[in-house]
Amino acid sequence: MTERLDRARILSSQHGVDALLVTPGADLRYLTGYAAKPLERLTCLVVTQLGSHLVVPGLERAAAEAADVSMPIVTFNETDDPYAIVADLVRHADVVAVDDQMWASRVFALQEALPESSFVLGGQLVSALRAVKDDAEVQALREAGAAIDRVHARMGEWLRPGRTEREVGADIARAIVEEGHEQVDFVIVGSGPNGASPHHEVSDRVIGAGEPVVVDIGGTTPAGYCSDSTRNYVAGGEPDPGYIAMLAVLQEAQQAQREYARPGVSAESVDAIGRQIIADAGYGDRFIHRTGHGIGQETHEEPYIVEGNTTVLEPGMAFSIEPGIYVEGQWGARIEDIAVCTEDGLEVLNNTPRDLVRL
Amino acid sequence: MTERLDRARILSSQHGVDALLVTPGADLRYLTGYAAKPLERLTCLVVTQLGSHLVVPGLERAAAEAADVSMPIVTFNETDDPYAIVADLVRHADVVAVDDQMWASRVFALQEALPESSFVLGGQLVSALRAVKDDAEVQALREAGAAIDRVHARMGEWLRPGRTEREVGADIARAIVEEGHEQVDFVIVGSGPNGASPHHEVSDRVIGAGEPVVVDIGGTTPAGYCSDSTRNYVAGGEPDPGYIAMLAVLQEAQQAQREYARPGVSAESVDAIGRQIIADAGYGDRFIHRTGHGIGQETHEEPYIVEGNTTVLEPGMAFSIEPGIYVEGQWGARIEDIAVCTEDGLEVLNNTPRDLVRL
Repeated sequence: MTERLDRARILSSQHGVDALLVTPGADLRYLTGYAAKPLERLTCLVVTQLGSHLVVPGLERAAAEAADVSMPIVTFNETDDPYAIVADLVRHADVVAVDDQMWASRVFALQEALPESSFVLGGQLVSALRAVKDDAEVQALREAGAAIDRVHARMGEWLRPGRTEREVGADIARAIVEEGHEQVDFVIVGSGPNGASPHHEVSDRVIGAGEPVVVDIGGTTPAGYCSDSTRNYVAGGEPDPGYIAMLAVLQEAQQAQREYARPGVSAESVDAIGRQIIADAGYGDRFIHRTGHGIGQETHEEPYIVEGNTTVLEPGMAFSIEPGIYVEGQWGARIEDIAVCTEDGLEVLNNTPRDLVRL
Repeated sequence: MTERLDRARILSSQHGVDALLVTPGADLRYLTGYAAKPLERLTCLVVTQLGSHLVVPGLERAAAEAADVSMPIVTFNETDDPYAIVADLVRHADVVAVDDQMWASRVFALQEALPESSFVLGGQLVSALRAVKDDAEVQALREAGAAIDRVHARMGEWLRPGRTEREVGADIARAIVEEGHEQVDFVIVGSGPNGASPHHEVSDRVIGAGEPVVVDIGGTTPAGYCSDSTRNYVAGGEPDPGYIAMLAVLQEAQQAQREYARPGVSAESVDAIGRQIIADAGYGDRFIHRTGHGIGQETHEEPYIVEGNTTVLEPGMAFSIEPGIYVEGQWGARIEDIAVCTEDGLEVLNNTPRDLVRL
C-alpha cells in the first residue's frame, strides 16, 4: 500500500496536482487497504507532496485502525466541520484532484472550503495504477475466474424448461456464494427474446424448451476481486438454425479477439477486430455495445475495450472480452471471458466451453 | 411517481432551480421507480419546468422501459456524448441542481457542457420529499421492522459463548434473508470491548460467557425499504454490575426519547433530551454519536437526529432512535428502534425487548 501511495504521489506531481483527495470506493481501498463504507459522514484520504493523512469520523477510527492503514488518522466529532480539516491539510494547494466518484455534495463543500484552489478529476491518477495488476492481484482474479467457472459448470442443476428466469437466477446466486464469492454482483438469465437485451437481469418469464438462454454472472471474492463470465445455454431441445449460425459467427469473433489481444496493441483495436468479423457476417448493427471493460476490485474499471480508447495494453492489464449479437424479439448471445495480459500474450481466466452448452 | 415528479418540479421552481439532474441512486428510484445501477455509462433524469426526460445508455433502454417510467426515454450509443444530450435538454437553464451523490466526473462534465449555468446541490429538493413517507412507504417500513424483529427474536439459536463474532454474524446474515429481506445491509456483533466501537462489524474474537454483546443488524426488503435495529445480549453468564447500571441509564434515555418525539418538536431536541439523561448519569463523554438517522430506501437519510438539525418533525417522518454508551477497553451498549411520526405521536416499528436479553 505504501508503494501504491508513493506512486500516486509521483503521478500527481507529474500531472501538476498538489493534493489528491479520495473518498470511499475502490480507489480508497486500493491506496489504503481500507474498505470504508460510503457513509454520509466524510472519510477522505488526503495525499500531498508532504505526506498522506486519512480523515475519518471519530466513530470510524477503530475500523480504520483495524484496516492497518499506513498513514496518520485524523478524526472529527459529530458537530465538527470535516471539510475545514481537509482544507487545513491541503493548504496552499493550487490544483486539487478529487476521485471521479466523489459525491457532488463533497466536491461543492471542498470547493467552498478551498476557494483559491482549482479542482480537477484525479481518477486517472489512480486508475492508471489500478489498471495494471500486480502478481497478487492477478492471482486473486484467477481465483475469482475459477470460482465463477465452477458456477457455470453446475448450470445443469438449475436451468430447465418450465422454470422461470427468476427461479434459476436465485439458484445461481446461491451457488455464486457457495463456490467462493463473498457477494453476488449480478445475475443475468436472458431466455429467448430477453436475451436480446444485454443488461436484462431476470424476470418471471418461463424458459421454453429449445430456447437460447444467455447467462452472465459475477461476484466479488473475499479477497475483494470480481468475476464476470457469460455463456450460452439451451435446455430440452434444439434451437433455431438461425441462432446456431449467429452463435458460430460470435464464437469466431470472440476467439479472434482472444488470439489478437496482447501487450502493445491498443484497446480499440481489440474491439475493432471482432466487430469487423461480426459486420462481415451481416450482424454489424446487432453488436450494440463495446467489447469489454477492465476488471479488478470493481467489475467495470479501466481499461475499456471500446472504439476511441487508444490505451496501449500492458502486461498486468485485466479486462473482459465479450462481444454479443442481439436480435430484438428473437434471441441474443454473448460470450465473455476475463483475460489478463502477460509479457507476450494473454492469459484467459475463464475456461468453461464457449460453444452452445446443451443441458 | 408522477405526483412525486410534480412536487419535485414545484419545489425546484420555489428554490429558483431551472433544471434538476438526478443520476442513479435512491433519489432516482424515488422519483422514477427505476432502480438503475450505478454504471460508468451515464443515466440521468432531467427535470425542467417544461417536463422530464430520462437519458439512458442504449443498452439500458429495455431495463428502463421495464421499470415503467412515466417520462420519455432518450438513449445514446456507445460513442455518443451523453452530456451534450443532457445539455440540450436543459438549454438556457441559469441554475442547475444536481443530486448530492452525483459523481465528480459527471459534475465536471456537465459544468463543461453547460458553461453558462451555475450549479447547486439538489439533494434537499428530493430529500424534503423523501423524508416524509406516504402510507405505502410506512407500511413497507413496518414490514421491514417486523422482519428484523424476527431475526432478533431468534438470537438464541446462534449467540453462544465459544463462538466467534464472525460465525454468529454469518448465521444472522442468513436469517436476515430468511425472515424477509432481499439483501443484508450490515451485521454488527460487538462482544466485550468490541462493543465499545459503534461501527465495529464482526471479528474472529471468541465471545466469552457473561460478556455483553451489541447486535446491530439491518437489511433491505423486496419492496426496497430498510430495517435497522440494535439490541444487547449476554450468553452463558451474568455481566459486570457496572455494565448493568450503565445499560439502565441507556434504557431510561432511549425511552425518554421515544416518549418525547412527535410532530412539532425539532430533530435536535430529541437528541438533547436523551443526551441530558446520559450526561446527568456521568456518561456524557461516552455517548459519542448522534441519536439517529432517517430511514427509508436508504438506511441513512434525512432527517438526522443530531445537534444542529432544527428540522421540525412531521407526520410520516421515519428515523432511528439509538443512543449508545461506550467504555473503551470494556464494553458498549446501544438500543435502537426505528420509529415513524404519526399525527400526534410516534409509532415504534421495533418491538423486541429493550432490556438486556439473557440467552
